[in-house]
Amino acid sequence: MRVLGIDPGLANTGFGVVQRRSGRMVALDGGVVTTRSEQPTELRLAVVHREIADLILRHEPDAVALEELYFGQNSSSAFAVGQARGVVMLAAGQRSLPCQAYTPQQVKSAVCGSGRAPKDQVARMVQTLLALPELPGPDHASDALAVAVCHLSRAPLAHAMSAAS
Amino acid sequence: MRVLGIDPGLANTGFGVVQRRSGRMVALDGGVVTTRSEQPTELRLAVVHREIADLILRHEPDAVALEELYFGQNSSSAFAVGQARGVVMLAAGQRSLPCQAYTPQQVKSAVCGSGRAPKDQVARMVQTLLALPELPGPDHASDALAVAVCHLSRAPLAHAMSAAS
Repeated sequence: MRVLGIDPGLANTGFGVVQRRSGRMVALDGGVVTTRSEQPTELRLAVVHREIADLILRHEPDAVALEELYFGQNSSSAFAVGQARGVVMLAAGQRSLPCQAYTPQQVKSAVCGSGRAPKDQVARMVQTLLALPELPGPDHASDALAVAVCHLSRAPLAHAMSAAS
Repeated sequence: MRVLGIDPGLANTGFGVVQRRSGRMVALDGGVVTTRSEQPTELRLAVVHREIADLILRHEPDAVALEELYFGQNSSSAFAVGQARGVVMLAAGQRSLPCQAYTPQQVKSAVCGSGRAPKDQVARMVQTLLALPELPGPDHASDALAVAVCHLSRAPLAHAMSAAS
C-alpha cells in the first residue's frame, strides 16, 4: 500500500509518499510545494493543485492522508488553510482516491505512542521508521511523512475492525 | 464586461452570470450546484470544481466575484466553506481569471445603497437591476447574482480611481 501524506497550506504544502513493503515502510518522495505571497490566491491555489495532481500521477498512491488542524477561534486562518486543503482533496477526488484526515494528536500517537510527543521526537521516529539517513525536513515535509506513516500504521487495524464488524 | 458571481459552499454553491451591455446589466445564467452529503468531501469538491469550470468555459467571464463570509469564532464552518471556495478560486486561476471577494456589507451597499439592507430587499433590487420577470431564487443563486452585480457596479469606479492615481 502506498500513501501520499499532505500537510496543506497556501504558502507551504508539505508532501511525503510512503509505501509499506513486506511489513517495512519506505519513503519514496518528500518535499514542500511553495507559492509566492505576491501572487493572487487563485494562482497560488492553481500551483498547489497542479503539483499535487502531478505527484498523484507519478506515484499512483492508494490513498491521501491529510493533517487536520485545529484552529480554535482563528476562523480566518481556518478559512485560508481550508482553501489549500480543498484543492488538495480535489486532486484526490478527481482520481477517485480516498482521503483521510488525522489530527496532530492522532499522528503523534501513531508515530510515537503519545499524543503529546514533541515535534522533534516525531521527526526522530519518522527517521527511524523510514530508515532515513538523516532527520526528515523541512518541517512541512516531515509532518507530511508523519501523517502518511500514521495512515499506514492505523489502516490495517481499521480494516481488521471493519472486516470483523 | 461579464462577471461570474459565486456564493460558495460544499452543499450548495450559488452561481450567477451577469453582463453589462451599454450601461444595462443582464443576467445570462444563474442557479445552484448541489452536492450530496453522503458522498465523501473529495468527490463533492470534484463536482463543485467541474461545474464551475464548465460555467467558465461556457460563458467566458472576464472576472469571478465571490461572497466573502464572516464566520466569527466558528472556525469549523470557515474551514468547510474555505475548501469549497478554494476549488472555485482554483477553477478561476486555471483560466487566469481574476477573483475578487466582497463582504455581505459591500454587496448590500452596492446593490441597495445600505450595508444593512435585509435579504429580501437585496433580492428585489437584483430583480429590478437585471429586469428579471420574477424574484431571483433560490437564495444561493440570488446571492451569487447580487455579488456579480456588486462587482460590475464597483468595477468602473475602481478602474477610474486606479487610472487617476
